[in-house]
Amino acid sequence: MKVVDGLKWRYAVKRFDPNRKLNREQIEYLKEAINYIPSSYGLQPYKVLEIESKEIRERLREAAYGQPQLTEASHVFVFANFTSYGPDKVDAFIKLSGETNNIPEENNNAYRDMLNGIIGSMSQEQVSTWNSKQAYIALGALLSAAAEQQIDAAAMEGFDKAKFDEILGLKEKGLTSVCIGAVGYRSPEDANQFLKKVRKPMDQLFETID
Amino acid sequence: MKVVDGLKWRYAVKRFDPNRKLNREQIEYLKEAINYIPSSYGLQPYKVLEIESKEIRERLREAAYGQPQLTEASHVFVFANFTSYGPDKVDAFIKLSGETNNIPEENNNAYRDMLNGIIGSMSQEQVSTWNSKQAYIALGALLSAAAEQQIDAAAMEGFDKAKFDEILGLKEKGLTSVCIGAVGYRSPEDANQFLKKVRKPMDQLFETID
Repeated sequence: MKVVDGLKWRYAVKRFDPNRKLNREQIEYLKEAINYIPSSYGLQPYKVLEIESKEIRERLREAAYGQPQLTEASHVFVFANFTSYGPDKVDAFIKLSGETNNIPEENNNAYRDMLNGIIGSMSQEQVSTWNSKQAYIALGALLSAAAEQQIDAAAMEGFDKAKFDEILGLKEKGLTSVCIGAVGYRSPEDANQFLKKVRKPMDQLFETID
Repeated sequence: MKVVDGLKWRYAVKRFDPNRKLNREQIEYLKEAINYIPSSYGLQPYKVLEIESKEIRERLREAAYGQPQLTEASHVFVFANFTSYGPDKVDAFIKLSGETNNIPEENNNAYRDMLNGIIGSMSQEQVSTWNSKQAYIALGALLSAAAEQQIDAAAMEGFDKAKFDEILGLKEKGLTSVCIGAVGYRSPEDANQFLKKVRKPMDQLFETID
């Protein structure tokens, strides 16, 4: 299905069918979309956690005000951004970048300095917010690719981030939770699927500057 | 092209061919992707500006450190989020929502109160940041849909936001600029297209919690 047709088809799933699982190929496809979508400078300043443990899913559900997608969806991805982005991370990126394109590392020294300069000029909170925004681009890619594949999905932000961080041990990893992408099959009983999608008229969302 | 294949095909275009324009149908498709991608509660707390004026494009380019995409791309979208989201906007959303699904407005009173409660508990800066994150989801959809259609694109964040806001008169509209999506045709001379895409190994980006 074309992305736009898929986006018209999709809706924010509240109740997934807990008995239906996406297959390996479907999940790999969604993960590739997340991996290939761009991020600022290509830094990918986030991790994506696939929550398989049933027990942890239960605990996350509690920390998400009981929202059933956490336990009922086939797969749950938690996006978590790096809370900082120090010179060690920049080095790793420069190394990966050089290796990928067979560029001698010293040729990237100016680029490394530029990245360190930009990031060093920001407060840690600014860096964390910036990183979290990149994760939202990846969430947009997940939702778009899922729509194309007619895979049901729910994007979720309404959860206690501190509790998620604690349950998933994110702080020790220099991460903090941002948003959730739950995917699977809608339950036939989910009433939300029968509602029409609410969207602004195009001329209200867009404005031409001419 | 499938989204993931398109994402592998694409790259961050630096130089567009200034003589080639996307057609109306292509642009409408991209705009529909932006409109149909979800946002938190469906609020779409942003506007998307299509910059057609050549003169304004020149000024934006200056405010974006001379980056050539601003003047050379076929179309330039500037995403701008609402800096606040007051009860008037909630009312408009509730009205649209009720009309779309033929729900008497009073049935949505509890939902209205909930939204006003959530938003009212945040500082204006928190609301603005939250809104900007929703715009990033839409940017992710634009990039995904463009990739599917093999439309070249560049996502851009490196610009002087205060200057953009001034040039576009955003402050008076309760908006602030967030990010740019420039689309069109790559120039055959853009050296970036010959670089391999730099991405983390999947097992570094993803982590399974089991």
